[in-house]
Order: sequence, then structure tokens, then C-alpha cells
Amino acid sequence: MQFDRIRLSALHQKVMSAEQATDFIKDGMTVGMSGFTRAGEAKAVPQALAHKAKTQPLKISLMTGASLGNDLDKALTEAGVLARRMPFQVDSTLRKAINNGEVMFIDQHLSETVEQLRNHQLKLPDIAVIEAVAITEQGHIVPSTSVGNSASFAIFAKQVIVEINTSHRADLEGLHDVYIPTYRPSRTPLPLVKVDDRIGSAAIPIDPAKIVAIVFTEQPDSYSTVSVPDEETQAIASHLVRFFEQEVQAGNLAKNLGPLQAGIGNIANAVMMGLLHSSFEHLTMYSEVLQDSTFDLFDAGKLDFASGSSITLSERRNAEVFSQLEKYKNKLVLRPQEISNHPELVRRLGIIAINTALEFDLYGNVNSTHVCGTQMMNGIGGSGDFARNAHLAIFVTKSIAKNGAISSVVPMVSHVDHTEHDVDILVTEQGLADLRGLAPRERAKVIIEHCVHPDYKAQLQDYFDRACHKGGHTPHLLAEAFSWHLRLEQLGSMKR
Amino acid sequence: MQFDRIRLSALHQKVMSAEQATDFIKDGMTVGMSGFTRAGEAKAVPQALAHKAKTQPLKISLMTGASLGNDLDKALTEAGVLARRMPFQVDSTLRKAINNGEVMFIDQHLSETVEQLRNHQLKLPDIAVIEAVAITEQGHIVPSTSVGNSASFAIFAKQVIVEINTSHRADLEGLHDVYIPTYRPSRTPLPLVKVDDRIGSAAIPIDPAKIVAIVFTEQPDSYSTVSVPDEETQAIASHLVRFFEQEVQAGNLAKNLGPLQAGIGNIANAVMMGLLHSSFEHLTMYSEVLQDSTFDLFDAGKLDFASGSSITLSERRNAEVFSQLEKYKNKLVLRPQEISNHPELVRRLGIIAINTALEFDLYGNVNSTHVCGTQMMNGIGGSGDFARNAHLAIFVTKSIAKNGAISSVVPMVSHVDHTEHDVDILVTEQGLADLRGLAPRERAKVIIEHCVHPDYKAQLQDYFDRACHKGGHTPHLLAEAFSWHLRLEQLGSMKR
Ligand SMILES: CC(C)(COP(=O)(O)OP(=O)(O)OC[C@H]1O[C@@H](n2cnc3c(N)ncnc32)[C@H](O)[C@@H]1OP(=O)(O)O)[C@@H](O)C(=O)NCCC(=O)NCCS
Ligand SMILES: CC(C)(COP(=O)(O)OP(=O)(O)OC[C@H]1O[C@@H](n2cnc3c(N)ncnc32)[C@H](O)[C@@H]1OP(=O)(O)O)[C@@H](O)C(=O)NCCC(=O)NCCS
Repeated sequence: MQFDRIRLSALHQKVMSAEQATDFIKDGMTVGMSGFTRAGEAKAVPQALAHKAKTQPLKISLMTGASLGNDLDKALTEAGVLARRMPFQVDSTLRKAINNGEVMFIDQHLSETVEQLRNHQLKLPDIAVIEAVAITEQGHIVPSTSVGNSASFAIFAKQVIVEINTSHRADLEGLHDVYIPTYRPSRTPLPLVKVDDRIGSAAIPIDPAKIVAIVFTEQPDSYSTVSVPDEETQAIASHLVRFFEQEVQAGNLAKNLGPLQAGIGNIANAVMMGLLHSSFEHLTMYSEVLQDSTFDLFDAGKLDFASGSSITLSERRNAEVFSQLEKYKNKLVLRPQEISNHPELVRRLGIIAINTALEFDLYGNVNSTHVCGTQMMNGIGGSGDFARNAHLAIFVTKSIAKNGAISSVVPMVSHVDHTEHDVDILVTEQGLADLRGLAPRERAKVIIEHCVHPDYKAQLQDYFDRACHKGGHTPHLLAEAFSWHLRLEQLGSMKR
Repeated sequence: MQFDRIRLSALHQKVMSAEQATDFIKDGMTVGMSGFTRAGEAKAVPQALAHKAKTQPLKISLMTGASLGNDLDKALTEAGVLARRMPFQVDSTLRKAINNGEVMFIDQHLSETVEQLRNHQLKLPDIAVIEAVAITEQGHIVPSTSVGNSASFAIFAKQVIVEINTSHRADLEGLHDVYIPTYRPSRTPLPLVKVDDRIGSAAIPIDPAKIVAIVFTEQPDSYSTVSVPDEETQAIASHLVRFFEQEVQAGNLAKNLGPLQAGIGNIANAVMMGLLHSSFEHLTMYSEVLQDSTFDLFDAGKLDFASGSSITLSERRNAEVFSQLEKYKNKLVLRPQEISNHPELVRRLGIIAINTALEFDLYGNVNSTHVCGTQMMNGIGGSGDFARNAHLAIFVTKSIAKNGAISSVVPMVSHVDHTEHDVDILVTEQGLADLRGLAPRERAKVIIEHCVHPDYKAQLQDYFDRACHKGGHTPHLLAEAFSWHLRLEQLGSMKR
């Protein structure tokens, strides 16, 4: 055990095994854990908890930053530990339990969880479990590969368990910028005005007396699951790059575009990869998760600075990047997700937000979460934090899914996460629809023209024509609005 | 004509008739006009424009702050002047034209219009027509009963027509606080930290050389159409007051609640009236439109300060309030709607936002705009600006409409303006549902228990039960989700 990672020596006596630490987590508690997009989650304690729950009753409400790696949500679900879970997840076992109504899932804008805790809108965590690379001389916690909600969880909780993960380099220290907004009614402006501003502290400031246990682990983060760009995602990227070029030429966008945010998943990553071969330089990112593409852009000399809340890399890039951390360290900062996603900052900085839709409709409403209106995929994540206040709110998706059985452009989305008011640009491999300043009937025309897969074009045009005949500002035929989803359910394809 | 209202004497020569002034407005232009919730709209020029359009081709894109009074939207629609209209309206003639697809209506978050103009997302106005009480020595424009988007329209337009309305007291001057955010990429924080902070100037700073015409008018603002609270709206108010009392008792809200925002319309006004008979004191408002209730609360000594973007009063209160303006003036400020509704400030100040829904659904999604999913009522207005970032996002509505033929609580809303993520509290005359921290299936239970009218309770429970049987995080039966709306259309009632 690397006791030098605990620089406040009075805390050395708190070191114990993960099993022992789980004794602080009682049945019925609300627990806040670190972890954001599979990075920096506490590992040993939740694993021990899942193990323990096999032999004794143990149900908790679990809050994290966002998704966990290392199959932790799977293990906790299988052990029946999760009564409630918020604000985001990506695990297929947990997903099933959520959709069966077994785990109560509270799907939230990622910037809002700690704000709601601070304002007594949600029950405060009884205990926090936070992965760290070190504890400072003051007893403050130095986070690892994500900040997420860790700082506020540790501040709000009465007790804190720290997991020191020695698989992370100790010199991650210095990468983080922990800022906590002041309390209302005397809250002051967030002092950040540039993506690379540092406004907080390098560690999470808590009273070390709250640290009840310290657990050592050396289990690494999971790798990200992004795949290499394919033909369709490359086509999406090039439509978008062309659009950016036109906007710069027209004087509507700065030469370096402005701070970029890119959502989770393959498509958003591919879009960022697309910028590698563009003419843009001095790019910056103000995003949530920093993926492979961020470091590829650094290496290509395209990117000047990246602010995020976590770093999640593929197997290909992980060792490479972390073994050369010094190369990137002064161009990177990790912030609490409340700050990386804060509406105040998203609006001030003028972010270009690129997120992925499951489906969108004729009028530009976007569904990011619910397959066929009912089955939760992951959660809204930060997409709403960014899209609402972005300079440009862009949503991308392939025009079809499941070998064409599904059109991702439908008459009416079966669930709305982002309304027409919050969506500027839609892109599929077919093309790009610029919806800015258009009324619903005009939006429908450009969406049909540019985004729909040829197999579904006539079918969608037919719906739109008949809906217009019936009338309304936003023409619809309520009796048929979900007929595509119903046909999929009944006949296995949306195709007529 | 009161030439003393034009304190820069070089501008006296620009005085002309409204008819003459319309010569500056050419076919095809984009025109920005003052006016917000029927207050402070330019009157003479648009009327002359409607008149002129009867004899010559004249189509414009019209942007305002929000709704216009004096039947201007009706006159402009009937004269065929409106090709495009944004961002809000409340006129029944225009509504019909919008729903017939004759006028392209761009329904926007009220805080976003000028931000989009500033960022080249929308076409800038060629000309602005701004109602004023005076022009200063510097040639700056002193707005009247609203600020709305007037300041930015005047700043962006190449030419400005000023309508000096002598029916407004000259001493409205001093009431306004005009702040314009700095341009990206070097935008700084909005320096407002308390509802009564003044951060801008008392008049709209433009180059007086842009003023091409000055028109005098003495036509007053229209009265507001709010009616006195009825039994149902009073019941809604008392559910809400009781909830506030409980929250204060539990230590979740400050004794003076925090800054209040109340939407347009009868119900929101009635809710504010309900606070008259509550125990709360030292209330403050940070809202859009200040209605009768604001001044009733001042008179009762309950309200310390009110910030808004306009003042719109009923016939009963109008003369009373404006004849005693000095009594209220140091407790009031009118701001640009970008600032009254700004997400940065709504989040910082911790606003309690109370807005009206047309309908909401089992899971807390709210429709504020589209009757039966297609027919535009008014527009989203500022409801989204406030609900997304509010400390508490509250939506109110009567549980039934049209003598019970319509249930305002439905299985699935036919249009989504506010998603489940942005809705904390729902209130009908039946009761109050507190949705905070609940998963969809839990929300459905409290909504059915507290908000639904008895005539529709069994029917909604039945839908929910069968949907749960089918499964999903957000259980629905897509084949039946709109069956209530379809039954209304086909049989005249949602009742089974
Ligand atoms: C929408 C989202 C699920 C897409 O994920 P992705 O990995 O980029 O996209 P993919 O195209 O690989 O699609 C993921 C799955 O959805 C399926 N899918 C795509 N469109 C679909 C549709 N319209 N209906 C049903 N399924 C669909 C795909 O077939 C794929 O299924 P598989 O996992 O069985 O292969 C993901 O981006 C997400 O969860 N977004 C919401 C949160 C968010 O935006 N966060 C951003 C800030 S972090
Ligand atoms: C939703 C809104 C239309 C309600 O207006 P209101 O005057 O408070 O409410 P009312 O109960 O008087 O309802 C207005 C009309 O809608 C009808 N209505 C109410 N619920 C309905 C429903 N579920 N379906 C169809 N019609 C409905 C009423 O019967 C009434 O019709 P009428 O004018 O023919 O009498 C209005 O608040 C609005 O436009 N909101 C959106 C903008 C906004 O929230 N701005 C807030 C910040 S300014």
C-alpha cells in the first residue's frame, strides 16, 4: 500500500479493507459515489457491497456523476442492492431492471443533481464513496479520472469513504479544478470566462474528520467502448465540417468555431475525428467527457485546450495518453459536472453542442432516451444542459437503425427530450438540416429533403402532406403519429 | 405635440405622421417592434402599415418582444402584412392564420430571440419601431411600459422609428434598466446578484443618426384581460400556499420564499393573489409581466420589490397604479426580456417559477402551447426560460376544461414544451403533486392521486395499470396514448 498517497498521516489509521468499509453503508441509506462516463468510479467498495448483499438485506439509493465502469451497475443490480438510481447509467442489466420497474431510476440533467441536493429538493447522501489518487496534507481529496459530482457528494455527506486507486498516476493531481457555487440567496456569478480559466481548488475541500475509511485498490478504469468511425458516421462528420466551413465563410462563426462539446457514443466521437482532416485550428473543447478524439486532435495540433469532467479512453489510446500525461497536462482541466455543464457557462461561452439522438421528428423534436417511448436506453445526460443554451445545438444520428427496420426520422418522436425550441441543426449520413429561424412546416420540408433515408422519404412526405391538409401550426395526424413505432412492434419494421 | 419629450433638438425635424413613417418600411423587410404582453407596443405605425397594405403589396417579417395590444396583430393579419412572426402572440385572428399555415410563426424562448440575432442565427431587423416616453439629450430612447426586445432591436437595426406616446407619463423615465450582454468570445458574467440590482442604463443607447422618423401618438395600452379569481383558481392558489408554508416549516425554503415569477393569464395571476392572504412577507418578484396582483401585493405591504419586463394592468387597476406611480417607482424595475428571463440569472437567483399548462401527463410532461398537438394557442413564451433553471418549477392548470369535456391531465401530452426533467410541482384545483426525486412510475401515482378530476381518475388509472403491465421505464400504450384526444375530436369529449 502506498501510504505516501495519504499525506495527512493522522488518516493512516483509517485504512481498511473494502469489506470492512462496507460496514458504514447501512440498509436504506442514500449513497453518493464518484464516477462519470466509466471513469474514476469507486471500485472496491461497491464490489464488496454487492458481495455482502448476497447474504444480508441491503438496499440503497445510489447517486453517481454519470455511468460507472467495471460492470458495477450490473453487479449491484444482480445483487439487488439498488432501490433507486440517479442520474444516468449505461448498463444493460440495470437497464432491464429499470424498464421492468424494479429499480426506480431518476433520469436528470447532469448539471442539476447537486443543485437540487443543495436546495433540499433531494435527500442528501448519508455517505460518499470517492475514488482518489491521493489525500492532501489538509485531508482534502484529489480525484482521479473524473470529477463528476464527487466534490458535492463529499461535502454534503456526513461520512466519506475514500478509495485510493494506485493504478492511476499520482500526478493526475493538478488536473482538477473544483469550484462550488455559493449558496443562495447570495450566490455570485461563476467567475469562469474562458475555457481554460481555473476558478477553484485542486482537491475536494472537506473536513478530514468525516473520512471514516480509506481503501486501497489498483483496479483500472474500464476502457471506452467507442468503435472506429464507419462510413455513415464519417458522412455525418463531413456534412458537419462542410457546414462549419460555410458558417465561417459567411462570418457567422469564428475561425476556430468556438468551444466544442461532444456527447457520448460513437457518432459524437466520429464527428470530432472528422475535425482532424478539416482546416480548423486552435480549436477548444468545453465538454463533459474527453474521448479518444480529444487526444487525437491534440496530437494533430488542432486543439489548444480541453475542459471536461472525465477522461474515458479506448484500449488503443489509454496507455498511450496516460503514459505521456505531461504532454497534455497543461492543456487539460477536469471540473465538477455542475460546472462543465452549467447553463450560465454554456450560454456565456457560446458552446457548439453536438449530441446524439435516438430519433427525431418532422418538426425537430429529439428523443435521446426512450426506445419506442417506453424503454429507457441510458438517460438524458448532459444533452439538455448543452442544447438549451448552446450557441448551436446540433443533434446527429444515422438515418436508420437495425438494418433499416427503424427510421430514426419519424412523424412524431415517441418521447421528447429536446423540443423544437432547442434544436438548431440535425445531421444524418444523408445530409444536414439547418432549422434556425424556421416555422414547423418549413422545418419539416428541410428535414425530409436532407435527413431521411431514401427508403422512408415517400412515406414521411405522405404523412406530412396529409397532416398539412388537416391543418395546424404543427400539423399531425394523432391517429397515425405513432403508427411507425406500432408497425415496428407488430411487424418488425417501420416500413410500409 | 410635446416637443419637450424630444430633448435632442436636432431630432425635432424627424417628426412626421405615422403614414409618412411607413415609407421607411419596405416590402420584404424584417421589422423589430416594441411590445411585450400587450404593453408598450408601437401603435400608430403598425396601424398605418395595415392601412397602407390594403392598397399596395407589403409583406414583412415581424419580431416583437411578446404579444401586442390594441388588436394590432389582428389588423396586420387581416391586411396580409405578416409573412413571418416571432416570438409570441395571443391574438385569435393571427392564431387562425398561423394554424392555417398562412403566417410562418417562430415560437421561441423569450430570452433567446436577441441572443440568436446577436449570433447571426436569425436575420437582423432592417428597421425597428419603438414606443417611447421620451428621447434624451443624447438621442437615446426611453421605453414606455415594456422593455421587451426593444433595446437590441434598436441597436441591431439600421434605421429606427420612434413613437412617442404621450398617454404614458413622462416620469416612467427612470423605471428601466437596459443592460446588453457583451459579445462572445469575451462575454463577462451578468453582474446582477439581487432582484433590485441596477446594472444598465435608463435609456436605450443608440446613435441618434439612425432615428429616421419620430411619430407622436396618444393611444393608450390595452387593458389586460385577466378576470377575478374563481373557485378553482383560488383552490389552486391555496394548495400552493399550503405547500410553501410546509416547505418553509421544513427549512427547505426561506421565509420570504425567494424571488417569484408568475406567468401570463388568469391562473398565474390568481395564484399571486392567493399570497395576499398568506403569512409571507418581504416577498420579491423576478418575473416577466407585472400584473394586477403585483400591485395588490405592494398595497398590502407583502411585496418588497418587483423586477419585470412589462406592466400590464386591468381597467380596474390601470389608472390607479399609474396615477400613483411615485408610490411604486422605487420598488420597480423593467428590464430587457433577455435579462428578466436569462437562464444565468434564473439559476443564480433561485426563482420560484409558476406557469400555466394547457395539459400535462401521467409522467409530468407539460404542454403549454398546442391544443390537441397541432393548434397553436399562444407560444411557449418565457415558461421554458424559467422552468428549466428555476429553484422550483411549478405548473398550474384547472383539472378540466370546456365543462369537463377535456381532462387537462392525459395519458400522454399531445405536444411537449417542458419535459419531465423540468417540472417539479403540478397543481390543479384537486390538489398538488410534488414530483421531486421521483421516477416516472412514482410520479404517475401522485399525479393520479392529487391532480386528476374525479370524472377522469378511474380512466387514467386504468391506462396506467395496463401500461405498467406492458412495461418500460415510462410505461405507455402507444396505440392508446392519444385516444383521449381522438375521442374529443370524434365524440366531443374525452370521457369514456
Ligand atoms: C442516443 C444514444 C443512445 C446513442 O448512442 P451511440 O452509441 O452514439 O449510437 P448508436 O448508433 O451506436 O446506437 C446505440 C443503440 O441504439 C440503437 N438505436 C439507434 N437509433 C434507434 C432508434 N431510433 N430506435 C431504436 N433503437 C435505436 C442502435 O441500433 C444501437 O443499438 P445496439 O446497442 O443494440 O447496437 C446515446 O448518445 C445517449 O445515450 N445519448 C443521451 C445522453 C447524451 O446525449 N449525453 C450527451 C452528453 S454526455
Ligand atoms: C397555457 C395558457 C394558454 C393558459 O392560459 P390562461 O388564460 O391562464 O388559462 P385558461 O384556463 O383561461 O385557458 C385558456 C383557454 O385554453 C382552454 N384550455 C385549457 N386547457 C385546455 C386543454 N387541455 N385543451 C384545450 N383547451 C384548453 C381554456 O378552455 C381556455 O379557452 P377559451 O379561451 O376558449 O376560454 C397560457 O398560460 C399560455 O399561453 N402559456 C404559455 C406561455 C407562458 O407560459 N408564458 C409564461 C411566461 S409569460
